[in-house]
Amino acid sequence: MTLIDRTTDLAQGLRDRFVAVRGETEALAAPLSPEDQQIQSMPDVSPTKWHRAHTTWFYETFLLGPSLPDYGEHRPGYGYLFNSYYEAVGPRHTRADRGLISRPSAAEVGDYRRHVDEAMHDLLDLVETGERSELAPLVDLGLQHEQQHQELLLMDIKHVLSVNPLRPVYRDEQHEAAGDPGPVGWIEQAGGIVTIGHDGDGFAFDNEGPRHDVLLRPFALADRLVAAGEWLAFQADGGYERPELWLSDGWATVNAEGWDAPLYWFRDGGDWWIHTLTGVRPVDPAEPVVHVSGYEADAFAAWADARLPTEAEWEHAARATPIEGNLLPADRLHPTAASGEGVRQLIGDVWEWTASPYVAYPGFRPAAGAVGEYNGKFMSNQMVLRGGCAVTPGGHVRRTYRNFFPPHSRWAFGGLRLAKDAA
Amino acid sequence: MTLIDRTTDLAQGLRDRFVAVRGETEALAAPLSPEDQQIQSMPDVSPTKWHRAHTTWFYETFLLGPSLPDYGEHRPGYGYLFNSYYEAVGPRHTRADRGLISRPSAAEVGDYRRHVDEAMHDLLDLVETGERSELAPLVDLGLQHEQQHQELLLMDIKHVLSVNPLRPVYRDEQHEAAGDPGPVGWIEQAGGIVTIGHDGDGFAFDNEGPRHDVLLRPFALADRLVAAGEWLAFQADGGYERPELWLSDGWATVNAEGWDAPLYWFRDGGDWWIHTLTGVRPVDPAEPVVHVSGYEADAFAAWADARLPTEAEWEHAARATPIEGNLLPADRLHPTAASGEGVRQLIGDVWEWTASPYVAYPGFRPAAGAVGEYNGKFMSNQMVLRGGCAVTPGGHVRRTYRNFFPPHSRWAFGGLRLAKDAA
Amino acid sequence: MTLIDRTTDLAQGLRDRFVAVRGETEALAAPLSPEDQQIQSMPDVSPTKWHRAHTTWFYETFLLGPSLPDYGEHRPGYGYLFNSYYEAVGPRHTRADRGLISRPSAAEVGDYRRHVDEAMHDLLDLVETGERSELAPLVDLGLQHEQQHQELLLMDIKHVLSVNPLRPVYRDEQHEAAGDPGPVGWIEQAGGIVTIGHDGDGFAFDNEGPRHDVLLRPFALADRLVAAGEWLAFQADGGYERPELWLSDGWATVNAEGWDAPLYWFRDGGDWWIHTLTGVRPVDPAEPVVHVSGYEADAFAAWADARLPTEAEWEHAARATPIEGNLLPADRLHPTAASGEGVRQLIGDVWEWTASPYVAYPGFRPAAGAVGEYNGKFMSNQMVLRGGCAVTPGGHVRRTYRNFFPPHSRWAFGGLRLAKDAA
Amino acid sequence: MTLIDRTTDLAQGLRDRFVAVRGETEALAAPLSPEDQQIQSMPDVSPTKWHRAHTTWFYETFLLGPSLPDYGEHRPGYGYLFNSYYEAVGPRHTRADRGLISRPSAAEVGDYRRHVDEAMHDLLDLVETGERSELAPLVDLGLQHEQQHQELLLMDIKHVLSVNPLRPVYRDEQHEAAGDPGPVGWIEQAGGIVTIGHDGDGFAFDNEGPRHDVLLRPFALADRLVAAGEWLAFQADGGYERPELWLSDGWATVNAEGWDAPLYWFRDGGDWWIHTLTGVRPVDPAEPVVHVSGYEADAFAAWADARLPTEAEWEHAARATPIEGNLLPADRLHPTAASGEGVRQLIGDVWEWTASPYVAYPGFRPAAGAVGEYNGKFMSNQMVLRGGCAVTPGGHVRRTYRNFFPPHSRWAFGGLRLAKDAA
Repeated sequence: MTLIDRTTDLAQGLRDRFVAVRGETEALAAPLSPEDQQIQSMPDVSPTKWHRAHTTWFYETFLLGPSLPDYGEHRPGYGYLFNSYYEAVGPRHTRADRGLISRPSAAEVGDYRRHVDEAMHDLLDLVETGERSELAPLVDLGLQHEQQHQELLLMDIKHVLSVNPLRPVYRDEQHEAAGDPGPVGWIEQAGGIVTIGHDGDGFAFDNEGPRHDVLLRPFALADRLVAAGEWLAFQADGGYERPELWLSDGWATVNAEGWDAPLYWFRDGGDWWIHTLTGVRPVDPAEPVVHVSGYEADAFAAWADARLPTEAEWEHAARATPIEGNLLPADRLHPTAASGEGVRQLIGDVWEWTASPYVAYPGFRPAAGAVGEYNGKFMSNQMVLRGGCAVTPGGHVRRTYRNFFPPHSRWAFGGLRLAKDAA
Repeated sequence: MTLIDRTTDLAQGLRDRFVAVRGETEALAAPLSPEDQQIQSMPDVSPTKWHRAHTTWFYETFLLGPSLPDYGEHRPGYGYLFNSYYEAVGPRHTRADRGLISRPSAAEVGDYRRHVDEAMHDLLDLVETGERSELAPLVDLGLQHEQQHQELLLMDIKHVLSVNPLRPVYRDEQHEAAGDPGPVGWIEQAGGIVTIGHDGDGFAFDNEGPRHDVLLRPFALADRLVAAGEWLAFQADGGYERPELWLSDGWATVNAEGWDAPLYWFRDGGDWWIHTLTGVRPVDPAEPVVHVSGYEADAFAAWADARLPTEAEWEHAARATPIEGNLLPADRLHPTAASGEGVRQLIGDVWEWTASPYVAYPGFRPAAGAVGEYNGKFMSNQMVLRGGCAVTPGGHVRRTYRNFFPPHSRWAFGGLRLAKDAA
Repeated sequence: MTLIDRTTDLAQGLRDRFVAVRGETEALAAPLSPEDQQIQSMPDVSPTKWHRAHTTWFYETFLLGPSLPDYGEHRPGYGYLFNSYYEAVGPRHTRADRGLISRPSAAEVGDYRRHVDEAMHDLLDLVETGERSELAPLVDLGLQHEQQHQELLLMDIKHVLSVNPLRPVYRDEQHEAAGDPGPVGWIEQAGGIVTIGHDGDGFAFDNEGPRHDVLLRPFALADRLVAAGEWLAFQADGGYERPELWLSDGWATVNAEGWDAPLYWFRDGGDWWIHTLTGVRPVDPAEPVVHVSGYEADAFAAWADARLPTEAEWEHAARATPIEGNLLPADRLHPTAASGEGVRQLIGDVWEWTASPYVAYPGFRPAAGAVGEYNGKFMSNQMVLRGGCAVTPGGHVRRTYRNFFPPHSRWAFGGLRLAKDAA
Repeated sequence: MTLIDRTTDLAQGLRDRFVAVRGETEALAAPLSPEDQQIQSMPDVSPTKWHRAHTTWFYETFLLGPSLPDYGEHRPGYGYLFNSYYEAVGPRHTRADRGLISRPSAAEVGDYRRHVDEAMHDLLDLVETGERSELAPLVDLGLQHEQQHQELLLMDIKHVLSVNPLRPVYRDEQHEAAGDPGPVGWIEQAGGIVTIGHDGDGFAFDNEGPRHDVLLRPFALADRLVAAGEWLAFQADGGYERPELWLSDGWATVNAEGWDAPLYWFRDGGDWWIHTLTGVRPVDPAEPVVHVSGYEADAFAAWADARLPTEAEWEHAARATPIEGNLLPADRLHPTAASGEGVRQLIGDVWEWTASPYVAYPGFRPAAGAVGEYNGKFMSNQMVLRGGCAVTPGGHVRRTYRNFFPPHSRWAFGGLRLAKDAA
């Protein structure tokens, strides 16, 4: 999967990408039984089946219905069930109740996907012939949207499987322990007025722009992610028991939830074990810590006498990083230890919590209509994370990509990299 | 299915009954997809798959493990997942989370059932040959237990399907409207010292005894159930808006839950419709009202200037009633209108709310050990219901049978019959 | 304070009783500051100030307004604030928010009481002269109502003071340890058809009738209350850790609430201490255990291989007991150890949990109108307690008196006496 | 009350300021009865009595205990009751339960204040003589802290009185309607690199620094606050019913809470009325809207095709504004209509919601020890408000002052001023 080049005709290759992305979703769902695909293990999680249907609904609602003459809605009621949060599209099923809908079945959702795929091929004919080439960006958005849900599908099924005391796996895989990543090095950055945000070349979500100047002070960025071994040291040093390290909301959450380790870690005997998509095994100290909340990331940074980077610092430091790393379709499905030289792990492995609340860039205006609800309305009470993770599709991440979660969230693949003010 | 005669040798016919009951559970589950069988639509509901596994666990835990030499547990962890509430057996999975366990799948639960069935045939050999004939009552209890869960399976799947806005059906069936049951007649009963409770002949649950004397005052019992048409009149007369008709807890529940009709009734246009296992259709005024709480039953009785019968009154009035009626395996799966003469509908159709809190009969002592948790520990905050309903297996109801639910419960097939003090 | 004799003219002495009861309420509130009188420490508790106002509102609403020509309502809005639960009287302030009303102040409530008292003297003139003698029973009801609230006032302020870590006292008093009450003796009762319920002689609440026959089996009743020392033995024997002793709802409550002792007991070092209205001190093993829930009472009885008496058994056994004991106006404000011979402590000390759910007696009909809401509408999910307690006004208890609380309640002065089936 | 000049000796005049601030707190509490001072109407609110005690505890804990030889703690337990949120100081009473502590009484809190004041005079002797002049900044912090609580005291008692259906007033005052403020004018600002944050001259809280450069784009700021009349237009235009205007969290809150107007507005007949500290009266369209959440402020700005200013924009625009306005000790206790020319209402009237999440300025480090908990640990899930309000003490506001509340909060005196990108 390669990055989209918008300077060439977006319509070129659109059908191939459509087929590839649609196929990838089904490939990710393939190891999962109808029962696996049914479960919503907490309100934030959606069933696999729902992801498969909702990504399909997106094309039906924003492309086929409005733009394909004679398109016949697949089934009445699906629009109600599979709208996620688009107020402008109409009423919809309660989010927290997505796991209570046994019908349509996983197989019937497959039928839905095939029905929409067929109609999309008719629409892609119109795009390719130039009759409706203006629809190409919306198709592209649909594919980007589906790639986001591929990551969500894996995040969510990881949680679903984790609540089962039988500890089932998504895919059985042997973990190969990596070598010690060595001590953290610090990469100095001069700061000054720098430019961040998407430059308009190729696809980006609306929240990545407008491109704009920001003023940075000199800073240093760690050359790798915080590793699990360092997290074990934080725990051993009373990290979860010392209120002075924590934001007030974070400390309240630690106590309310009884946190004493990252999500998916559990103690067995004297050791810490970890639940992953490929099975349960001891925590590997060399690999990056993952599934920590923004509160935990912040407390760790305080303990380490450092801080989290801002998103502008991160983006500036990553300005020349190649867009490659531990991403899908790698089989690993988990972050892996740093190796090599220089600033490592910026792309892939874990989403890196930043110190930046998720707010609009200067001059940002959401698009008109339902599509404008995609990003802008979530700009409160969330923090920005950067860089993609081990379950992000390879072509889906950008240096300007702004992921966001509330600071208490742990089921996303969130980890951290430290920063410091320049000496 | 016929009533068990304990005066003959219980072991006789035990294998046939075992095969029949086990098969009936699978037959009831057969119309349901893996997804249908997975869902827990509220904490009181259990997934179909869980019912199938839990009834199997009962034999494994109370019979095969303790009594069959060399019995091999089917899968580790199943004991934890499928223990319902037996504290003496050990820790168990959280009840409200039963819907979050995708594995074992419905098919793997089928394997579990087959594994246990095979072992049970070995055990039944020992029972039949007399080598372990003392186990026959425990096998019998397992079958009675499974029959209870057959009813629960249908109660629960009815709720599961009801929360789906697509309104799926368990089985598609045409409703045939019945004739008007005519006005209620009153059957006078003289009262005095009468005897109630199980006489020890044939199977009964421990809570049905000891048989004992009670003192009844003269009373009259309605000769049929309250019909849906009468409920419509109650609604039209402000039944859900007049606090003077309600117990205080009931009135609080009406307001907290926004009740204005029985569960599964909904208004479409000017009419009341009903969700049943066989589809959605207009409310039929001739059929008994069902899925009302004990609070609603009590308020209706107050509105009708009557009262609910006590369980002793009910049992005494039913003393000679044949054990037949609208019960499983009838295809109807819903109560039906009264017809004929005399006291009708005592057995089957709906569980009849009584005025009696569920408490121990004089001299009651629960059995020792885990089996003693079956009934006794639930003797608080619940009311007794009598008579069985349209989804109760035919051989499973008795005149002495004491069903019980908290007064706010509506997903059981609860309805009512009026009583009065003698003039 | 003596029992009312209804066979004499109720109007006789009514004014004296009115003055005495009204004065007693104010005397009970006198040690309490405006702040003390303001607090609602949990939804079940009402502020002292509210009790003083609500008892006053009762006369205003049911007597002065309807029956005294030219009576001027004291202040607009008081009817809304001080109606407790009378739906028929109109809308009212949310119960759980009673502690949020700073105005009227405690002093202004005193003004309200004086205003109503003056008007009541005018009305009592009419009663005494015979012009309105038919109002005497309603005045009497108002006084009985106020006496109930005297007990509630003390129950409630005990809880209010208990949540203050400074452990303030209602009245500072030295506890004098009593002698060992000795082992429990068992009083045999023959049973048979016996009559219970109020006989119409003197005042009774509607729920104490109709008087009716019940059939009792032979039983034995303990000759004293369960003592705190016995409760310590229950705790030491794992009473709060053994699910087999508990009703299922009780066991869930024990775990949800973390109960390991009666309410108001706390551990300090190795010893159990108790918060009382007269101060904090070590638990005295000789005195009756109090402030246990119905669940705890039931579990203790199971542990002791006994059971709780039914309310009919209790009333029958108490049929000849004099109405005297550790009641108000004693300064003790706490149950005290049994002494003397025979069946002791039936009246006063602690309300005794029975095995009887609170339901209507045969033939019970609540009175018409708002006064009919007094008792009947609470007949669900509660258990009957008998005998009065150390903070019940002396003239307010009867052998037929049916107090009631949900089985999880602990802030009432609930304790227990054991019963057994006859050998 | 005048701004503190730190360039002169802080010790000069410290005693006078101490006396003045301490007296002002008592003067603000003086109209309130013991009952008024007791109530906590929601978890965010603290009782008046608690504010009076907590501000006193601050001196006792951070000054008298550590620094005054032979200081005798006033009462054991007060440290536990009156610590707000200082983890480093030790355990403390649950915040949500502050309203449940009747003792110490309001009068006893007065004793506590007098005891501490006397000791503080001894300590101020040492400061004035130079023996302990290093304590002057901590005394100053204590006074600033107390002034913050003066505002909180008024915010909180406003809420306390508002929940009383009798609609009591803090102080009875006649509202004089102001003239129409006229249309909003827009003040253009050139932007560029500007400096914000406290310059170290005079007192500031730690979160106001370090002073640092920020890069601003050209923008325009409204020359007055949004007025209530404009809010009425927003409501009339469906402001509370159009999801497209709202942040997702805001829309969820609107629906969960049933918001259709600012806090303290209520409809009576066809008109909107408002609860103020000086009584209930019709909404005055000329006065600024107040008691809106950050969500409402943001939605209003979207409706007006504008946006909220960032805190840097606000501070830059206010760089030359005199520190005067509608502040305490004015009797008004409510924002008032704009009058005059130029940018008005920057200081006083209402706290202005900004678009800026409350995060650390670059280089911010909280102070060591308990005092470091003052501000830094609250830097998550909150938004910055600027400018002070009608109940902020006059000497307590600064152009650099960063107030902060979660975006759903409405009981603070929050209003808004619009901003726009330059054309």
